[in-house]
Amino acid sequence: MAVYTEVSDDDLEEFAAEYDIGEVVSCKGIAEGVENTNYLLQTDRGNYILTLYEKRVNPDELPFFLGLMEHLAARGLACPTPIKGRDGTALRTLCGRPAAIVSFLKGMWTRRITLNHCAELGPAMAAMHLAGADFPMTRNNNLSVSGWRPLFESIRPRAAEIKADLEQTIADELDYLEAHWPKALPVGLIHADLFPDNVFFLHDRAAGVDRMSGFIDFYFACTDALAYDIAICLNAWCFEDDGAFNATKARLMLNGYRKVRPLSADELLALPLLARGAAMRFLLTRSYDWLNTPPGAMVKRKDPMEYYRKLRFHQGVGGPGQYGIA
Amino acid sequence: MAVYTEVSDDDLEEFAAEYDIGEVVSCKGIAEGVENTNYLLQTDRGNYILTLYEKRVNPDELPFFLGLMEHLAARGLACPTPIKGRDGTALRTLCGRPAAIVSFLKGMWTRRITLNHCAELGPAMAAMHLAGADFPMTRNNNLSVSGWRPLFESIRPRAAEIKADLEQTIADELDYLEAHWPKALPVGLIHADLFPDNVFFLHDRAAGVDRMSGFIDFYFACTDALAYDIAICLNAWCFEDDGAFNATKARLMLNGYRKVRPLSADELLALPLLARGAAMRFLLTRSYDWLNTPPGAMVKRKDPMEYYRKLRFHQGVGGPGQYGIA
Repeated sequence: MAVYTEVSDDDLEEFAAEYDIGEVVSCKGIAEGVENTNYLLQTDRGNYILTLYEKRVNPDELPFFLGLMEHLAARGLACPTPIKGRDGTALRTLCGRPAAIVSFLKGMWTRRITLNHCAELGPAMAAMHLAGADFPMTRNNNLSVSGWRPLFESIRPRAAEIKADLEQTIADELDYLEAHWPKALPVGLIHADLFPDNVFFLHDRAAGVDRMSGFIDFYFACTDALAYDIAICLNAWCFEDDGAFNATKARLMLNGYRKVRPLSADELLALPLLARGAAMRFLLTRSYDWLNTPPGAMVKRKDPMEYYRKLRFHQGVGGPGQYGIA
Repeated sequence: MAVYTEVSDDDLEEFAAEYDIGEVVSCKGIAEGVENTNYLLQTDRGNYILTLYEKRVNPDELPFFLGLMEHLAARGLACPTPIKGRDGTALRTLCGRPAAIVSFLKGMWTRRITLNHCAELGPAMAAMHLAGADFPMTRNNNLSVSGWRPLFESIRPRAAEIKADLEQTIADELDYLEAHWPKALPVGLIHADLFPDNVFFLHDRAAGVDRMSGFIDFYFACTDALAYDIAICLNAWCFEDDGAFNATKARLMLNGYRKVRPLSADELLALPLLARGAAMRFLLTRSYDWLNTPPGAMVKRKDPMEYYRKLRFHQGVGGPGQYGIA
């Protein structure tokens, strides 16, 4: 929630002149996005998002992320499209940082997840998986099973500051996940961070419902089991604030997904394990951030214990039926 | 530089329904404004700013600020105009805070002040003073001479943390300002915070210059000597980063002002004293914020010493001629 890099009007003028987007009439820093600096850029032709990539993004990976957004948008998926400059490139430098302009996506992320939102999310996620099938680039998911142990070792000495049994819980679970992690599921392009703040909706007043208007923030996207994206969403969308799992939300999301891209028997069976892995991934990164972010910092820390409890839930799940599906 | 209050999509939907502004299609928190929470609100009809007033604003004073913006806009001054709801009122409540929607003002504030900007600022400031002349409400300037001593007393015990001689410098200067502060200058509506981030410009590519597009942030506006607004701008616009006073900038600003609203001989003679007072006001408030803001806080602290040096400069000014004018 911050602007890390302030862009002067002079620098902006020069940068925008590389594009055929009209005259800049406004440029305001957006208080969203914990990784990068985002500006809402308005010209006399329309709205755009200007992103400066900060240190947590590897510049070498930007062609993958921007290429993916362009690919998905070209296939009709609602997502930001990189705008190319007059020289044909979308990625350039601003204030010493890699920077790009992407199209503006209407909509707002929901702060209160309803059944409506879960029903919309499922088919849109499946459509994204289908649209990504022929994307030619690949990117390893460095926050999947092989990346968890090093993350664990880095937080291990201070894990007890979060919860007394956190170290033992993670150690046991990691052993299990490493031994049982599925290797033969259908693989493709996944978003890998489809939390509510990355999914936009627009209210359809006539119908009285919210309609999904697009996905944003593809900077964790990678090549991995497609069902792992679903597992991340089971965690991010189907628990209530009090920690209760809402099987109706899960059912609507999963059945909506399956109408667009059917899930194989193996994928369905793997869901509880994938959901444990997804819970582990966010338990580890949130624990890391919790221990390494000063309390007064500009970035609000997210509670790792939320994912400890979700992990515990999935550990007790006997089969995909408990996610509300037949 | 922060969003203090997060507005949920449900709350926003309900709030926006009180207005005749169309359907909300986007609402993004803006990383500007240290006092209030601002959202850039987009509907299918246009752009607006949604402001939630946080604790540093006295709710009782909001009718003055909103009334003033409405008054100035009605007289053709470029500034945000409060949008009234279907019930005819502009001020209502959102997330437990006073809140208002105002019109969106195109333009960007300049990070690099040029002669061009100073020449634009002068006449626009004078036009604002003229437009405010028949505004019926008044508001005491509680950050003028009578407010400085209480502020000083509150920072006095820790002033040495900023600079060894700060306490003595302020004590001596306060005695002088209280004894000599002018009481008979033309009084009217002043902005009282016309720093570069509150003045918007648009680039006129054909002419190769920036044109002023409007003033924002009237939440320090009050009734005081009109020339005091000019004195604030002498400090905020006419010093270089290295501390040097740029008399050419001052001359362009002052002469631009005088073409729209002539300055009396008394006002011209009082400028050096008013500039000392303006420097004192920001030296005191910045010192207060410096001593009372934790270093890691979301608000970036502004260096009080910048205004210590500006105060020292004006103490050495013999007459208005040193501001570049005849």
